[in-house]
Amino acid sequence: MAIQKPRTLSGFMELLPGDQVLFDRMVALLRESYSLYGFTPLDTPAIESSEVLLAKGGGETEKQIYRFTKGDSDLSLRFDLTVPLAKYVALHYNELTFPFRRFQIGKVYRGERAQRGRFREFYQADIDVIGDGALDISNEAEIPSIIYRAFTSLGLERFKIRVNNRKVLNGLFDILGLGERAGDVMRTIDKLEKIGREKVLAILTDDFGVSAAAAAGLLDLLESPDPLTALEAYRAKDETFDAGLEELGTVVKYMSAFGVPADHFMVDLTIARGLDYYTGTVYETVMLDHPEIGSICSGGRYDNLAEYYTDKQLPGVGISIGLTRLFFVLQDQGLLNGDLITAPADVLVLPMTEDLSHAISLSTSLRGAGIRTQVYTEPKKFKAKMNYANKLGIPFVAFLGEDEVRAGKVTVKNMLTGEQESLDLGAAPTALAARAAALGGGAPIREPANG
Amino acid sequence: MAIQKPRTLSGFMELLPGDQVLFDRMVALLRESYSLYGFTPLDTPAIESSEVLLAKGGGETEKQIYRFTKGDSDLSLRFDLTVPLAKYVALHYNELTFPFRRFQIGKVYRGERAQRGRFREFYQADIDVIGDGALDISNEAEIPSIIYRAFTSLGLERFKIRVNNRKVLNGLFDILGLGERAGDVMRTIDKLEKIGREKVLAILTDDFGVSAAAAAGLLDLLESPDPLTALEAYRAKDETFDAGLEELGTVVKYMSAFGVPADHFMVDLTIARGLDYYTGTVYETVMLDHPEIGSICSGGRYDNLAEYYTDKQLPGVGISIGLTRLFFVLQDQGLLNGDLITAPADVLVLPMTEDLSHAISLSTSLRGAGIRTQVYTEPKKFKAKMNYANKLGIPFVAFLGEDEVRAGKVTVKNMLTGEQESLDLGAAPTALAARAAALGGGAPIREPANG
Repeated sequence: MAIQKPRTLSGFMELLPGDQVLFDRMVALLRESYSLYGFTPLDTPAIESSEVLLAKGGGETEKQIYRFTKGDSDLSLRFDLTVPLAKYVALHYNELTFPFRRFQIGKVYRGERAQRGRFREFYQADIDVIGDGALDISNEAEIPSIIYRAFTSLGLERFKIRVNNRKVLNGLFDILGLGERAGDVMRTIDKLEKIGREKVLAILTDDFGVSAAAAAGLLDLLESPDPLTALEAYRAKDETFDAGLEELGTVVKYMSAFGVPADHFMVDLTIARGLDYYTGTVYETVMLDHPEIGSICSGGRYDNLAEYYTDKQLPGVGISIGLTRLFFVLQDQGLLNGDLITAPADVLVLPMTEDLSHAISLSTSLRGAGIRTQVYTEPKKFKAKMNYANKLGIPFVAFLGEDEVRAGKVTVKNMLTGEQESLDLGAAPTALAARAAALGGGAPIREPANG
Repeated sequence: MAIQKPRTLSGFMELLPGDQVLFDRMVALLRESYSLYGFTPLDTPAIESSEVLLAKGGGETEKQIYRFTKGDSDLSLRFDLTVPLAKYVALHYNELTFPFRRFQIGKVYRGERAQRGRFREFYQADIDVIGDGALDISNEAEIPSIIYRAFTSLGLERFKIRVNNRKVLNGLFDILGLGERAGDVMRTIDKLEKIGREKVLAILTDDFGVSAAAAAGLLDLLESPDPLTALEAYRAKDETFDAGLEELGTVVKYMSAFGVPADHFMVDLTIARGLDYYTGTVYETVMLDHPEIGSICSGGRYDNLAEYYTDKQLPGVGISIGLTRLFFVLQDQGLLNGDLITAPADVLVLPMTEDLSHAISLSTSLRGAGIRTQVYTEPKKFKAKMNYANKLGIPFVAFLGEDEVRAGKVTVKNMLTGEQESLDLGAAPTALAARAAALGGGAPIREPANG
């Protein structure tokens, strides 16, 4: 028979077992963090009708979309979790209770050019709060605390959540006479960190005809070390600006009550988030020691989630973590916790008798105590069996020979310390459950001690 | 702007929030059961290169496959989790430790004709044990105990695991002189339960030229109430048969050590499993009160998992649960546990003051105690706020007004009993965590008491 060389498509992440355990642990911790804030889990199809998924049309992502026909149907794979959410909320509007708070962790697809660290299939981990007609500003204040808890639970410490408000920016542009070029200006200052002050000044003055004084004044303000105070000078000149400043103040005001430490949060007026649909607060999150990675969690407030699907006004606020890319970067930077136990079992039972009944009964009791247990039954040499436990990092090996069975005992070897002990068969489940639990989990991310 | 009518493709399951919680709980319980047996989680891409995915070629599923091109690539969506596993094991052979035990719970795609209860995107929940060159029979004996634990953890009680062995069947056919028609005969007796004895007899004699005596003898044996004893009469006539009988005996022998109650398990010689690649033990699982549903968990032993991708001999044993269809059936039959709490939060905090700081601080403390907490901040009437908690089924509402804040108290209403109590703010997290935990989870499936 002809052999087909096995391969996995480039741009598609496929992890080895140990890494998969770490990845799954990150997913579990994000689920837990999101759940603590009262978000309900959601799952939507990966395939949607193209006319539904692409209702918004155009856009940069359209050419990346996996689109195909099956029978008479024009189908597309989802490229984010926001459009399917918009569809879901519009479709099930009458069956949902608003504000509707959902999280979704799932795969999305973009046929991008293959490139190291770029994925064509990747997980997004999103939360959104959707209001019916209105949504209180406090929801925007809550988001940074969710980001803080989520990343802290993953083990990340050295990160900062940056917050801005699009109304503040838009109002400011109007006040400075840049209103007509607001979009261009916003996209330009969004690049400030990347290309630097001088280049931004040049683009503003040369390409968009902003006066040198206005451009410099704007940049001074955006780069102010105390932006909230600096913004006060512009109050009462523009309604949008005043509304935005009020919102930004509210978000900042509640940070400490939400449990976000001051050093993990800042107002950063240079953050604009390119996407057109953000209308209020916007968020970015950066790793302090890895600014080159860019934002690892971004989002913002939008005024109309589902305008392509319904006449209902559904404002919301949401954030998204690109989990596959984040995992790749953490792995690449050596930031995954190598001490985390990724073995598939806590205990490997090695039967040393012909009849396996006793070993199997022991494994059944161990599982009854919640211990992940495997009975190793392949007819291999003793050394090969121990090697199996070692390779997989299984922390305990339980030997059950004739002598042990007769004495009602089991010999247990701690593979981490090499210590060996004899336990009563009846007491083994409780004892081993405690030992396995003591090995603990730990967080999947571990930053170097010297930060 | 033109409104695009939102819709979800037919054959694609999209659940409302409460049902999604139940579905996710089933997934979590299956993960837990599989993990207790030392299986490691795996995730593979939903898209594979067509030449890799369809290496086996032909087959009934091929026309159902979602296949398309993107750029120069001929791509296909996976239609099961077995072929991707074969690819994975062949591709990563040198990095894996054998026996390799993995579980995978993920979506697969089949463009079947749309039909009630048939899905084009559905979850499979698979486990497989893959050996390198050989795999001990005890692995085949272990599978029913995993099935038993998995379904019991879901809350299912009235089910039975049926086991057979293909070697026994093949040997028997040889002994009865039906060897050349083995495939046809096997497919025919596989339909025994569906079409009945008389029709099977007719097909065997009329279509396949089996003598009436041989056909009747075969059916008597297959339908014997004590198949293991009945099979003894054929021992020592055929090597394959003897090997199969030995294996079947071993599987049965270890059932009680594996903790499977006798009434949840039976040898059923009529089970053949159509798929060609099964070579030893085969499994089916039926709900006693719903035989019309067919097998809810099937699988078996195969001798060569990855023959299309590698020269290595990789025997294995595995089972698969069609989770989406199972969920649909349970929902349809009213077997989902309606008492399970599916609310997104345990506590809804209602601030009764202008400044939200105290309410937010309380929510932060509650979350610190592991309580899923939402602060309700929309400016609605009191009745609307309570209605929100009611609609979502949130079990506790915490009121924080001026008086409470001044006295360092919080008023908590149990929405299930209507009881109201005043708690010290400092003691509230611990007290409410205990109350929320006491509401318990329960299993997602609940069968009627009268069975």
